[in-house]
Amino acid sequence: MEKDQVRDVGYAKLDMTRCARTGCSETVYCPGKNREQLAGIMEAFREGNVPVLGTKCAPEQFDFLRERGLDISYDPVSRILTSGWGKVEKLAGLVAVCTGGTADIPVAEEACRTAEFFGCDVLRCFDVGVAGLHRLLGRIDEIRKADVIIAVAGMEGALGSVLSGLVSAPLIAVPTSVGYGAGFGGVAPLLAMLNSCAEGMSVVNIDNGFGAGVMACRILRLINRKK
Amino acid sequence: MEKDQVRDVGYAKLDMTRCARTGCSETVYCPGKNREQLAGIMEAFREGNVPVLGTKCAPEQFDFLRERGLDISYDPVSRILTSGWGKVEKLAGLVAVCTGGTADIPVAEEACRTAEFFGCDVLRCFDVGVAGLHRLLGRIDEIRKADVIIAVAGMEGALGSVLSGLVSAPLIAVPTSVGYGAGFGGVAPLLAMLNSCAEGMSVVNIDNGFGAGVMACRILRLINRKK
Amino acid sequence: MEKDQVRDVGYAKLDMTRCARTGCSETVYCPGKNREQLAGIMEAFREGNVPVLGTKCAPEQFDFLRERGLDISYDPVSRILTSGWGKVEKLAGLVAVCTGGTADIPVAEEACRTAEFFGCDVLRCFDVGVAGLHRLLGRIDEIRKADVIIAVAGMEGALGSVLSGLVSAPLIAVPTSVGYGAGFGGVAPLLAMLNSCAEGMSVVNIDNGFGAGVMACRILRLINRKK
Amino acid sequence: MEKDQVRDVGYAKLDMTRCARTGCSETVYCPGKNREQLAGIMEAFREGNVPVLGTKCAPEQFDFLRERGLDISYDPVSRILTSGWGKVEKLAGLVAVCTGGTADIPVAEEACRTAEFFGCDVLRCFDVGVAGLHRLLGRIDEIRKADVIIAVAGMEGALGSVLSGLVSAPLIAVPTSVGYGAGFGGVAPLLAMLNSCAEGMSVVNIDNGFGAGVMACRILRLINRKK
Amino acid sequence: MEKDQVRDVGYAKLDMTRCARTGCSETVYCPGKNREQLAGIMEAFREGNVPVLGTKCAPEQFDFLRERGLDISYDPVSRILTSGWGKVEKLAGLVAVCTGGTADIPVAEEACRTAEFFGCDVLRCFDVGVAGLHRLLGRIDEIRKADVIIAVAGMEGALGSVLSGLVSAPLIAVPTSVGYGAGFGGVAPLLAMLNSCAEGMSVVNIDNGFGAGVMACRILRLINRKK
Amino acid sequence: MEKDQVRDVGYAKLDMTRCARTGCSETVYCPGKNREQLAGIMEAFREGNVPVLGTKCAPEQFDFLRERGLDISYDPVSRILTSGWGKVEKLAGLVAVCTGGTADIPVAEEACRTAEFFGCDVLRCFDVGVAGLHRLLGRIDEIRKADVIIAVAGMEGALGSVLSGLVSAPLIAVPTSVGYGAGFGGVAPLLAMLNSCAEGMSVVNIDNGFGAGVMACRILRLINRKK
Amino acid sequence: MEKDQVRDVGYAKLDMTRCARTGCSETVYCPGKNREQLAGIMEAFREGNVPVLGTKCAPEQFDFLRERGLDISYDPVSRILTSGWGKVEKLAGLVAVCTGGTADIPVAEEACRTAEFFGCDVLRCFDVGVAGLHRLLGRIDEIRKADVIIAVAGMEGALGSVLSGLVSAPLIAVPTSVGYGAGFGGVAPLLAMLNSCAEGMSVVNIDNGFGAGVMACRILRLINRKK
Amino acid sequence: MEKDQVRDVGYAKLDMTRCARTGCSETVYCPGKNREQLAGIMEAFREGNVPVLGTKCAPEQFDFLRERGLDISYDPVSRILTSGWGKVEKLAGLVAVCTGGTADIPVAEEACRTAEFFGCDVLRCFDVGVAGLHRLLGRIDEIRKADVIIAVAGMEGALGSVLSGLVSAPLIAVPTSVGYGAGFGGVAPLLAMLNSCAEGMSVVNIDNGFGAGVMACRILRLINRKK
Repeated sequence: MEKDQVRDVGYAKLDMTRCARTGCSETVYCPGKNREQLAGIMEAFREGNVPVLGTKCAPEQFDFLRERGLDISYDPVSRILTSGWGKVEKLAGLVAVCTGGTADIPVAEEACRTAEFFGCDVLRCFDVGVAGLHRLLGRIDEIRKADVIIAVAGMEGALGSVLSGLVSAPLIAVPTSVGYGAGFGGVAPLLAMLNSCAEGMSVVNIDNGFGAGVMACRILRLINRKK
Repeated sequence: MEKDQVRDVGYAKLDMTRCARTGCSETVYCPGKNREQLAGIMEAFREGNVPVLGTKCAPEQFDFLRERGLDISYDPVSRILTSGWGKVEKLAGLVAVCTGGTADIPVAEEACRTAEFFGCDVLRCFDVGVAGLHRLLGRIDEIRKADVIIAVAGMEGALGSVLSGLVSAPLIAVPTSVGYGAGFGGVAPLLAMLNSCAEGMSVVNIDNGFGAGVMACRILRLINRKK
Repeated sequence: MEKDQVRDVGYAKLDMTRCARTGCSETVYCPGKNREQLAGIMEAFREGNVPVLGTKCAPEQFDFLRERGLDISYDPVSRILTSGWGKVEKLAGLVAVCTGGTADIPVAEEACRTAEFFGCDVLRCFDVGVAGLHRLLGRIDEIRKADVIIAVAGMEGALGSVLSGLVSAPLIAVPTSVGYGAGFGGVAPLLAMLNSCAEGMSVVNIDNGFGAGVMACRILRLINRKK
Repeated sequence: MEKDQVRDVGYAKLDMTRCARTGCSETVYCPGKNREQLAGIMEAFREGNVPVLGTKCAPEQFDFLRERGLDISYDPVSRILTSGWGKVEKLAGLVAVCTGGTADIPVAEEACRTAEFFGCDVLRCFDVGVAGLHRLLGRIDEIRKADVIIAVAGMEGALGSVLSGLVSAPLIAVPTSVGYGAGFGGVAPLLAMLNSCAEGMSVVNIDNGFGAGVMACRILRLINRKK
Repeated sequence: MEKDQVRDVGYAKLDMTRCARTGCSETVYCPGKNREQLAGIMEAFREGNVPVLGTKCAPEQFDFLRERGLDISYDPVSRILTSGWGKVEKLAGLVAVCTGGTADIPVAEEACRTAEFFGCDVLRCFDVGVAGLHRLLGRIDEIRKADVIIAVAGMEGALGSVLSGLVSAPLIAVPTSVGYGAGFGGVAPLLAMLNSCAEGMSVVNIDNGFGAGVMACRILRLINRKK
Repeated sequence: MEKDQVRDVGYAKLDMTRCARTGCSETVYCPGKNREQLAGIMEAFREGNVPVLGTKCAPEQFDFLRERGLDISYDPVSRILTSGWGKVEKLAGLVAVCTGGTADIPVAEEACRTAEFFGCDVLRCFDVGVAGLHRLLGRIDEIRKADVIIAVAGMEGALGSVLSGLVSAPLIAVPTSVGYGAGFGGVAPLLAMLNSCAEGMSVVNIDNGFGAGVMACRILRLINRKK
Repeated sequence: MEKDQVRDVGYAKLDMTRCARTGCSETVYCPGKNREQLAGIMEAFREGNVPVLGTKCAPEQFDFLRERGLDISYDPVSRILTSGWGKVEKLAGLVAVCTGGTADIPVAEEACRTAEFFGCDVLRCFDVGVAGLHRLLGRIDEIRKADVIIAVAGMEGALGSVLSGLVSAPLIAVPTSVGYGAGFGGVAPLLAMLNSCAEGMSVVNIDNGFGAGVMACRILRLINRKK
Repeated sequence: MEKDQVRDVGYAKLDMTRCARTGCSETVYCPGKNREQLAGIMEAFREGNVPVLGTKCAPEQFDFLRERGLDISYDPVSRILTSGWGKVEKLAGLVAVCTGGTADIPVAEEACRTAEFFGCDVLRCFDVGVAGLHRLLGRIDEIRKADVIIAVAGMEGALGSVLSGLVSAPLIAVPTSVGYGAGFGGVAPLLAMLNSCAEGMSVVNIDNGFGAGVMACRILRLINRKK
């Protein structure tokens, strides 16, 4: 392994060739980084013309980056930051992102925008939770057209199980921290999704729309590579 | 409160008039009682001609009671013990007991036999979990005829939420310890049921079919009283 | 299932016929929705003349809705939002709502106002916790007149068990997050209520007064239907 | 501190003067000790004529000690082992030991026999749990005569709170592992007892009847010393 | 039980004769009560000339009570509120209150001031944690003069175990939420105290200095009664 | 949805057309089913000529099925049961299954045999955990040829993170219950895998090799469909 | 043990000779101390010319100490406070401090500055987490020159395991609270580090860079003593 | 990295040069390996003349290895397996292993025998728990002579904190699963040790005497290297 794969800025070692290795260029987890560190990291990627995605970015962090003149976009709902530079190739195939409720949308948008940044087409299908099953059944034909499905749900997180039994595409379940009391910040849907009686589903961390988005891309890239 | 409401056998104080107070005669939780204690308790109730239900009774406990000549029945699936003496009045109305899977049947039978012991009619509807939704939808009209519904499920426990959105009867959810790993002995379905996005549902302890059965009886007795 | 049961506003799929299906019209869980989404949802229901209840609504959310000219009421104690439009039929029967302490009142009021919104009469009986048993025993005759009882308690949550042994009506227990330290935000009373040695009781999520209120309504509706 | 306070047998350092320091001679926690170790420990105490109490002793451990000719007694219910040698002074005052149910008796007997071994008089008052409150109220005058009260309960552990509000003596609560499901081996009553809304109560470990017995003795010794 | 033992102010049922029943007059847990409720409660007690103690009172709550002209005192460290009216009798005997560190002082002061309010003399012995054992051993003779000992400690909570092996008085252990990370808000010292290898110790809730203070009073009152 | 999709044997509702709907025919979770139930279920599938996979099957269950004359195979390491009847189509593509240690092999074999049953080719690469990184690096080129990777690991579960950063294929992580103490039966690797700093990975339940195998199949089927 | 080892300032007992006993002079845990207490403690140490380190100090606490004229320094990243007085001897040997990511730097700096304060030389090697293994492998020769290694990581905390298998020096792992969701404030990396399949590693509390720094010093002092 | 560092036996990849890399040759975690696998692994190491240590080995596993004619020893207390072949160099320096009680000895012996196998001298100092502090203080001078100290304790795990404040050597704390109830299988001492107010201590997994032994060796080897 060669040393020049890494750009060392002291507080960070930037992985300049991650895209070649894993298919997705490096992404930056923004919390816990001060604004100077974040700016330094973004500037180093810009220099290398490496496209970069930032997650869970606070509005203040974004404001500072803009003041520094960086060519970036920001979505306040998903708190996703995307660089204007670099180039990501488009992928054939479709990712469907469903949510149980309206309050799950920020996490779902994190998944959508991550998938879109890495070249996927996304179908949004929000607020189709199991309390009113006909809402889901009314959209099921549309969802079945997707190659990968992401199910985002808080509270009891039953959307994943119900969906997974109705489709044949691989399903990635994202528990959210939506809920209160014995939801324990997303533990209830996380456990539900891990213990699903329905098969063909795997799970990412609570509120980790980003992780689901990348997993979906890796799967889609498989189809693209094989073609 | 009068002292003769209680029959004191040393290791137990038997509540001889519970039925008058709460509508159901006393029931005996069998684990942790040695066989002599259990026999002493049953004999005291027989003497008072008080009908009695025993829960989670081990086969060995039942064998000893039979040897002592007590007129009791035992169901090895639900581990429910029922006295042949005393008289419980029949109740109008119907309780539907549904399960997510086959492995939930012992807990479901505990609910069924408890409800039946206290006078209810029971509709059994087993293995209608959400992984194959058409199994539940195929039975839904039948279930809707019930006055109270009990949903028994382990794993991710989604049955309660899905059912509750499809019916108007009060629904009692029973999480079971069916599952493994991050099911944590029933914690996963317990949390799912407590956090249901569907309303009109309340929950009892893990594997507590008995509790659900009594709750259903209390509700049915309400209809009977009002007639 | 027909598609026009659902009103799709993009971020939400409104269930316009839930009342016909489950007996209660749709309710809105306010946290996690931004104010535009909330307003959009309320306006859609108003258009359909569907009565609607909002739960755990922040004062700022309510203020925005009022500014939008929506005919709604708000109770700052329970954080319940109720629409002025639509029509809910009155139900015969009585729901008693008891609390262990004064600090449990916000959750209890959520139960009371939910039950009232859906047509129930409510008896409030607050601060009758078990540390001073005579407070509860002094009110017990009154409580026994109710058809359904809701017991709201934090700390050790013993109110449910004590009450359930004294009455024959079905009892719904609501643990609250009142307490500190090893109360773990309501886990202590939740576990106590789930493990009650008293029967005829079921439990809803921590601080879920709303859930208890709807469950009580479903039970009362049973009496009304049977008459 | 002098070295001859300790008798060193290699695998154990026996505290020969604990009684002078803390008021109770050393006690032996039997689990995890092999039978030779246990015998060696008992023989060393016998040599020093130090009275000794063993807790949670398995029948096989006791059998081996008897075969070694040690003058000891054993109670299979509480699994308490007591030496026939040495001398413990009698204490004035009374300890009441109450249980919620019959299944709590083994833990309660551990408390009773510990207190008796260290010189206390004990009033046993078993199976007075809160599901049938009149059982407790019927015995309350008797209980009030005690100087210290020990409340032993599993399931929801409400006995402590209810009792503590009815008496003025210090109350020691012992949660037991009686129960199942979300009882989590005694966690539910432990949390309930720690979060009691009733004051004047403190708590020991799950199933720790021994600890409650010693605490009661320390309190009673206070009265004796003061006389 | 007579109804006039209770003063009903709607949101609260005041227990006017608790002192006669349990030895300590009623105390008020301030969190979760709004200021009008708190004032109403205090005024009712003043009217009955019942001395009253408030715990965990916020400065804002106190300010409002003072504005209402109530004769009360407030200690900002312990957040204890005490009424100027009523009369509490003095008790013979001494309570020692020890802390592991300086950060445990607020909880320790809650214990001290509770005990003092109910008539006890208190010896304060702060910052004698086990990391520098000589600090504790240097004070041990003084501590041994106390009739009851309260050990207040956060972090690993070892103070209770070490102290309990050095004294013969009953020891009440109070875990505090001092610490971070895997201290889990006081869970670490709570578990340590419950699992102490030293006997003669019992435990109250995390940060519950008040509970320890009342327990100490109940014990001291025993000595006073017996004299 | 048609009713004849379901074969009702009372204790089970068999989903005869799951394969058409989700791509995999029904599988049977064996624990909690008694042997008659299990035999009844298998016989019903045989009648329909539906291929069937059983998971976590006890040797005794298998023996009974063989005695009933069912044409099935059993692997005692993975406890996987496979029917000899029916026909599953072969899939192009490769699944690599890696384990951290030797003790993870039973779970890994569950994944391997599930994937093979549903038509996949599998590369086994066992005992390449991160404590000796060169073991993994020595195999990495081989692993990179796979289309989907399954990483099975207990203890600290780091294999998933390390692998995911080295490959571009989608990775499914399976935590196992291998370990002891603070491994908490697989919780430690489960949390590690959910919190991976490496992207492109999703997780199934503890010891759920089956779930990973099905997920891998769904992904491979995608490639096959697209070709 | 002599009493003058302790300087008693009422709210604190200062351990003036800890350095002689344990090799490191006393350190002050700043949270939970009010500013007057903190100032009093620092002034007492200054008077004794005892060098002192403060941990997790809030900026406001530092400002107050400066206003009191104390000769102290403060690092806002690590929140470490160091006295200008007293003298700490220099130690031969090297401590390497590695982090998984940039967000772990504050905890790592706490370790670095603690080790430096007590005389160690420190090599900083930040952001070498396992998602891009070449970043770590590129620095491994440098790290291998250290006598003690500290691995600081949040999220899945795999850095410790991977590093420990590559070096022969003792390794101290510090889990951090960096992460979200099922990271549970550092529980995920804590469990991972405790369950490492790699040997030669031990663990300190979540975010406890200080503890790792002192442990490293104790080890280095060993080399210095032996020389 | 060269491939011949690894000996591949299919179910295991043996790390033949670990000793050169980390200072300790490979060790085998026995649970979860079947006896053929274990024998194959041991035989491969014997062939390479690599000394090998096995941990947590069941008696049945050992018996099988002996039958296969392997030259190994087994200690039934610690369940440690050691090869007769290969050569481990002797290390200067002393490791003291202390336990809180007699029941902690199996874990302590695992530490002792691991350290001895890798060349260390060990001082055993058992049953010096904090309930009788003079037992520890009576041995403290002896313990202070050690270069590394291992403190093994269950229940409340206070031994580590007390010891760490009395010595200057690095201290490794090992929580054990000794205890019951709220000890949660070693969680109580684990948390206590992680939250110690005493510094200079780090922690390994519950019951992980092996890990402490290896960590001690790594530290001692440092002294040996430096000489």
